[in-house]
Amino acid sequence: MSNDGKLKLDACFSPHLYSIYRDDDSIVVIIDIFRATSAICAAFHHGTEKMIPVATVQEAAEYKRQGFLAGAERDAIKVEGFDFGNSPYDYMGDHVKGKTIALTTTNGTQAIAVAKDAYKVVIGSFLNIDALCDWLIAENRNIVLLCSGWKNKFNLEDALFAGAVTEQLVQRSKDFKLGDGCLALKYLFEIGKKNPVKFLNYASHKERLAKLNLKKDIKFCLTLNYTKVVPVLEGKYLVNYSK
Amino acid sequence: MSNDGKLKLDACFSPHLYSIYRDDDSIVVIIDIFRATSAICAAFHHGTEKMIPVATVQEAAEYKRQGFLAGAERDAIKVEGFDFGNSPYDYMGDHVKGKTIALTTTNGTQAIAVAKDAYKVVIGSFLNIDALCDWLIAENRNIVLLCSGWKNKFNLEDALFAGAVTEQLVQRSKDFKLGDGCLALKYLFEIGKKNPVKFLNYASHKERLAKLNLKKDIKFCLTLNYTKVVPVLEGKYLVNYSK
Repeated sequence: MSNDGKLKLDACFSPHLYSIYRDDDSIVVIIDIFRATSAICAAFHHGTEKMIPVATVQEAAEYKRQGFLAGAERDAIKVEGFDFGNSPYDYMGDHVKGKTIALTTTNGTQAIAVAKDAYKVVIGSFLNIDALCDWLIAENRNIVLLCSGWKNKFNLEDALFAGAVTEQLVQRSKDFKLGDGCLALKYLFEIGKKNPVKFLNYASHKERLAKLNLKKDIKFCLTLNYTKVVPVLEGKYLVNYSK
Repeated sequence: MSNDGKLKLDACFSPHLYSIYRDDDSIVVIIDIFRATSAICAAFHHGTEKMIPVATVQEAAEYKRQGFLAGAERDAIKVEGFDFGNSPYDYMGDHVKGKTIALTTTNGTQAIAVAKDAYKVVIGSFLNIDALCDWLIAENRNIVLLCSGWKNKFNLEDALFAGAVTEQLVQRSKDFKLGDGCLALKYLFEIGKKNPVKFLNYASHKERLAKLNLKKDIKFCLTLNYTKVVPVLEGKYLVNYSK
């Protein structure tokens, strides 16, 4: 809590900065809009039972050897030999239903790794934003919005989403005191929400994905409330906390 | 340069992130609006010949023992036994004219320390913004806008100024390709420039300074173009490069 008895809501713009924002009594929201946290939400929506986020390709490969389905992405491309990359479309359909899937990605699973000792770690994306905010308000805790960024650099799409969460939480509850990161994001979202695709037009990672012909993924990852899943870390597993 | 032949312009929101943005061919602009970089600009405007930015109070004390004037601030307060804190008003008047002054502050001099191996390190504040941008455009180099923040956390006033520099550089030259940090700041400055004092109203450090009765400092640090000085690091010294 802050000095005035309010809950603290702040944003951390890179996993590399997390040590500065770390507060193990907080809930940490992991944000990697293009595309890890969007893919995780899609997987749970399609009935995945558990996911095992891991930091390295080697760890994901070990799970695959043990018979698990496994996804691996580096530099926006699926790593050879794995079942999935980090496109949400890879995780849609009966092939993921009831399964436990290991996953490693360039940014998102790194962010999960640094935050693993927080009070709770939850996965956020535009796909589950309302369900996420419902859950966050019910939890009634300090919150750190952890933007995965791109290789530890700030990125615009994760910031846009963190701004969307900030706006929704502030509109729905007077209990939050915003840190400077969230103050900036709230302003940013006021501009970005009018036309998110245009807002992100010059974003570095959007350019990167567009070059790889992933415009369909970009559009899908900006879909609001595709699902009500709330993936939360329990030990080494992500599980769905939605009711 | 970026792939399309343009100069890179990006923002780094914390000294703790600088290793991620580091590019020793870049010019690094050190930004600590409340109040180190504003105080440095004020000192040079009032005829200071050189400044010696140091990371620790011990180093500043050593310079004082050697007979130099020395400023030291921690947690927004002047450290006992030193000649100055980091209020710009401390550095105005004949007592600084022709002098060499050692300085250590909570955030700004830490940022200078991490960036010291860059191609050039320059001091920016609202007080010297136009002179700074003239100099940056003439240099024709990649630029990293290094926001000092507050104890390695993002802060709003440094981001606002970095946004002001981004807007001015982009308006005056088509040669820059913006990283995601600067894209966000450009949007942020569009909102903030209408009323900077109101924009910063809830900023954590502004609250901190207001509690210390430093509203006069806040107002002064938001003054545009008080001076034409361009303080640049040469070895261990800051010197004024303005013509």
